[in-house]
Amino acid sequence: MRPPVVVLAEPQLAQNIGAVARVMANFGLEDLRLVRPRDGWPQRRAWEASSGADWILDAARTFDRTEDALADLRLVLASTARPREARLPVHTPRAAVAELRAVAQHGPVGLLFGGERAGLSAEDVALCQAIVTIPIDPRHWSLNLAQAVCVNAYEWRVALEDAPPPAFLTGDPPADAAALHGLFGHLESELEQAGFFHPPEKTPAMVRNLRVPLARARLTDQEVRTFRGVVAALVRGRGQRFARSRAAGEGA
Amino acid sequence: MRPPVVVLAEPQLAQNIGAVARVMANFGLEDLRLVRPRDGWPQRRAWEASSGADWILDAARTFDRTEDALADLRLVLASTARPREARLPVHTPRAAVAELRAVAQHGPVGLLFGGERAGLSAEDVALCQAIVTIPIDPRHWSLNLAQAVCVNAYEWRVALEDAPPPAFLTGDPPADAAALHGLFGHLESELEQAGFFHPPEKTPAMVRNLRVPLARARLTDQEVRTFRGVVAALVRGRGQRFARSRAAGEGA
Repeated sequence: MRPPVVVLAEPQLAQNIGAVARVMANFGLEDLRLVRPRDGWPQRRAWEASSGADWILDAARTFDRTEDALADLRLVLASTARPREARLPVHTPRAAVAELRAVAQHGPVGLLFGGERAGLSAEDVALCQAIVTIPIDPRHWSLNLAQAVCVNAYEWRVALEDAPPPAFLTGDPPADAAALHGLFGHLESELEQAGFFHPPEKTPAMVRNLRVPLARARLTDQEVRTFRGVVAALVRGRGQRFARSRAAGEGA
Repeated sequence: MRPPVVVLAEPQLAQNIGAVARVMANFGLEDLRLVRPRDGWPQRRAWEASSGADWILDAARTFDRTEDALADLRLVLASTARPREARLPVHTPRAAVAELRAVAQHGPVGLLFGGERAGLSAEDVALCQAIVTIPIDPRHWSLNLAQAVCVNAYEWRVALEDAPPPAFLTGDPPADAAALHGLFGHLESELEQAGFFHPPEKTPAMVRNLRVPLARARLTDQEVRTFRGVVAALVRGRGQRFARSRAAGEGA
């Protein structure tokens, strides 16, 4: 399934075109089309702003007419913050992506964005089958062009998979229950000897109050070993302090 | 429920700080905190890049230590594209926002972002309770700082309401069935007279094939009137062409 084509109608600043390419690359979009870019095309500043998304800019095509940029697309959604043409269905990006995915199985689909200052013309909106608008705070609705592309591209990608990248999934697993209960036993026996559980009838509740937060932390094997070392060090340290105190005749 | 605080650890470019303020305003976030901004603070270029989100920059506070910037927050998620500290729970922005909302009922929560070049240090990540990472294409994972804030702020807002702004909801409603069926009857009777329904046994299927796409368009009252005018004009034009053809002796 090809990701949506991004069509920019009369974009003004080359660095914004580059920022759009960058965020398209972030979310796996590839096909960028430019209708009458104000300052011509290609422009070096776009490549500078793309943070290495060169292949998208290298392959970008320019068009004189919006109609021609959209010609092969089976569904085009107009991204706009202002309801210039309210008779089309209006979707948020999440709903829009569901529509795009349904049609993208059959052929290319696209998103049409207007220029930085004026947004999409009513004529360009009327070339689309629906509107996509981002649920923005009405007190500050001026969204940067690359941000508008970002939100839609992000929704496209998370509709495919809303999961952390694989590199995040290689952390050590939680320790097994025996290891965790070993830590519990170690800690509780040392606390018992230190006179921590007082009064005795409160002991079961106090034990639970220690175990629950440690369980919630989902300690790994290494972390269980670390915390058993912590308990041992505190006990040993206490012994040394006792020893020092006694040597100094201070008692405890 | 207060929206999450945005904490930028060692941000580099003032215009990126301004872009962050702008997108915070877009999605209703307000509290911006800066830890050791590289070029000092305040800086004019931040205000220039904020597109009018002045109140966020005016109220932004700076800190020497990340710990101090986070001190009052009951839950802080570290936004990172690279798993520097994989032993924390890892959430996508959508799941992260659910976590933030649960705690935000009880007190302030926040999102911590690293600087443009190096991202968050492992030490700063270790000040947080979980990681939030955007499901990015691993082939191009360098996400602009303001874009990272954008995706998280967007998810915060749509968790509150994933609906188009009210201005989009004022379009005319669809016409009632009587008006739509009036158009159907008008069109079909004119087509009947024009000999369109041939062969006769196919008429019911042909009628359905006309009615279904018109129903799908959800015409308003005005649009029903417009299309009745279209039918009338086509019929009248045909009559005029007939009349002209006959006058010219061409027949039909």
